[in-house]
Amino acid sequence: MKAVVVRRGETEPTVVEVDEPTPEPGEALLRTLRVGIDGTDHEVIEGNHGWFPENDDHQVLGHEAVAVVADANDTDLDEGQLVVPTVRRPREEGNEFFERGEPDMAPEGEYVERGIVGAHGYMAEFFTSSLRYLVTVPDAFAESGFLVEPISNTEKALEHAHATRSAFEWTPETALVLGNGPLGLLTLAMLEGEQTDFSRTYCLGRRDRPDPTIDIIERLGATYIDSRETPMAAIPAAHEPMDFVYEATGYAKHAVETVHALRSNGVGALLGIPEDWTFAIDGGALHRELVLQNKVLFGSVNSNVNHYEAAIDSLAAFPDWLVDDLITGIYEPTAAPAAFETSDETIKTVVEFDTV
Amino acid sequence: MKAVVVRRGETEPTVVEVDEPTPEPGEALLRTLRVGIDGTDHEVIEGNHGWFPENDDHQVLGHEAVAVVADANDTDLDEGQLVVPTVRRPREEGNEFFERGEPDMAPEGEYVERGIVGAHGYMAEFFTSSLRYLVTVPDAFAESGFLVEPISNTEKALEHAHATRSAFEWTPETALVLGNGPLGLLTLAMLEGEQTDFSRTYCLGRRDRPDPTIDIIERLGATYIDSRETPMAAIPAAHEPMDFVYEATGYAKHAVETVHALRSNGVGALLGIPEDWTFAIDGGALHRELVLQNKVLFGSVNSNVNHYEAAIDSLAAFPDWLVDDLITGIYEPTAAPAAFETSDETIKTVVEFDTV
Repeated sequence: MKAVVVRRGETEPTVVEVDEPTPEPGEALLRTLRVGIDGTDHEVIEGNHGWFPENDDHQVLGHEAVAVVADANDTDLDEGQLVVPTVRRPREEGNEFFERGEPDMAPEGEYVERGIVGAHGYMAEFFTSSLRYLVTVPDAFAESGFLVEPISNTEKALEHAHATRSAFEWTPETALVLGNGPLGLLTLAMLEGEQTDFSRTYCLGRRDRPDPTIDIIERLGATYIDSRETPMAAIPAAHEPMDFVYEATGYAKHAVETVHALRSNGVGALLGIPEDWTFAIDGGALHRELVLQNKVLFGSVNSNVNHYEAAIDSLAAFPDWLVDDLITGIYEPTAAPAAFETSDETIKTVVEFDTV
Repeated sequence: MKAVVVRRGETEPTVVEVDEPTPEPGEALLRTLRVGIDGTDHEVIEGNHGWFPENDDHQVLGHEAVAVVADANDTDLDEGQLVVPTVRRPREEGNEFFERGEPDMAPEGEYVERGIVGAHGYMAEFFTSSLRYLVTVPDAFAESGFLVEPISNTEKALEHAHATRSAFEWTPETALVLGNGPLGLLTLAMLEGEQTDFSRTYCLGRRDRPDPTIDIIERLGATYIDSRETPMAAIPAAHEPMDFVYEATGYAKHAVETVHALRSNGVGALLGIPEDWTFAIDGGALHRELVLQNKVLFGSVNSNVNHYEAAIDSLAAFPDWLVDDLITGIYEPTAAPAAFETSDETIKTVVEFDTV
């Protein structure tokens, strides 16, 4: 079968023929429909994040997938059912975080991540997975279900953000998303959704108009902030201080700048994964502002099955036009390398292995 | 009556004669027993934190007090009852944070703080207070009750720390207190108490043995870490990574260093209030570690009545020797300036206006 991989020593994706996997007892065989591409895939390809499966000379890419059950293999699944796989798997049996359904909180070293850290991903015609790492999704998700994974990461970040403020009556009104990539735009759509508390949302980018991401930001009802005109430090005065900041840029200065952009009692969620970078900060002001204004800064990675379930509801509640506008390229497996090319017109690309 | 004040233009405390206050309707007249001194008082005296009451040429110092009801003035209090006053008061009537009992979460500008920010403190023979800002304490607290205020600040920080980790099953074992001043030692005693989750606690200081604070740290069952021998960056390897770090130093580099000292899923609480200080950090590593290890850093200031109530229980549960060992000096009002002098033998000093 065809698989999209990165080979050891290379920094670009390649389409190769690999053996079709055989499910172990307790595993189902899944036929892949669509696999989305995000910034983490680029970091994996460039060798900046994750690592190869042991003893393999390549890694199958992809961690955002929607698939259909091809062979239930005596599991409780029904053949033809649509599923989305989670990303993390335990390195050893009996891992306490996986046992209690919180693989997203497992420390580094205790997990692999399919398509990222030491395990093959989903960018192949078929893959196998244990039932416990699959979430069933509605039939209507055949084309959009690969978005459940990125949305689930924001579900976790939002859950943790609210938890940090649960010791008092927090009444947030304003939210700022840093980054107008696919995760930023999905998050903005979630924050603009009627089930959240936020009445005014903003999204930071650095694109000139006309631009398809700015169109989406504004169609969602949010305000676009061009960081070249209004840098982070100017946002509270130019717009307003933010109750919630969600960072999806991987730009290291955003961690500290997030604190200064917050209103009293605000919370900043970091999702990006920057490289080392040494620079000067006013550490006294950072520290003092956190204390005197009761602010929080936290990091969030990965997600668990509860977040996938919440993501299904969020995706179903998105306006009809959003997924169409987000997906700017659909590629056949043989054309998969082109799906990794970026441009100002590219938002989200997918590799489509099959349809239902 | 005698009051201990700092006068505009001066940077040292002075004992002056001021008029005895008259309670307004709804206020009681309190006879002061003891007022404790902490680092914030020094910052107030030096003009580094807080400000003078408007239209006054001096500020009565002191925000850690225990007092006895001298004139209930038709409130529900009983004369002779012991009380501890809270610190914050609203700048205007109808403030939402005060209305819902969360003055500790009020933004800067919406409150004054007695003895700190724009209001007279408790370091006088008598003071007045509305009933809603008084917490009644047991008769046994006549000598120790002034500690309820600092303990309440840690109750808040601990409540918020647990809240930040409430979206998953957090099982902390290790805690590190930064700073062996009175607040650090009180916090260490709370973390060592049987009602907390922490089985191993550490306290960072920079004192040579023999030292009374190291004696207290070790008598509490904690491990003393000398930062000159084991700097923050070396603590995880030399000891172990920490599930919880509590900063009570006001040293700005501790904010960032706290993140690196944490175990995965750990939480750092900042309580100190540093001045501006620009220095270089590896902001990429800070950001990445927060994300990939699901860490939290938050600031906490002040406390509310619920935290005072919790502090009463914590103080009552302290070992008998602790308060005696903490209080290294008891000064009459006329000798109050000497109570502000610091030395390696000084831990906590109090000005005693009266006894019961």
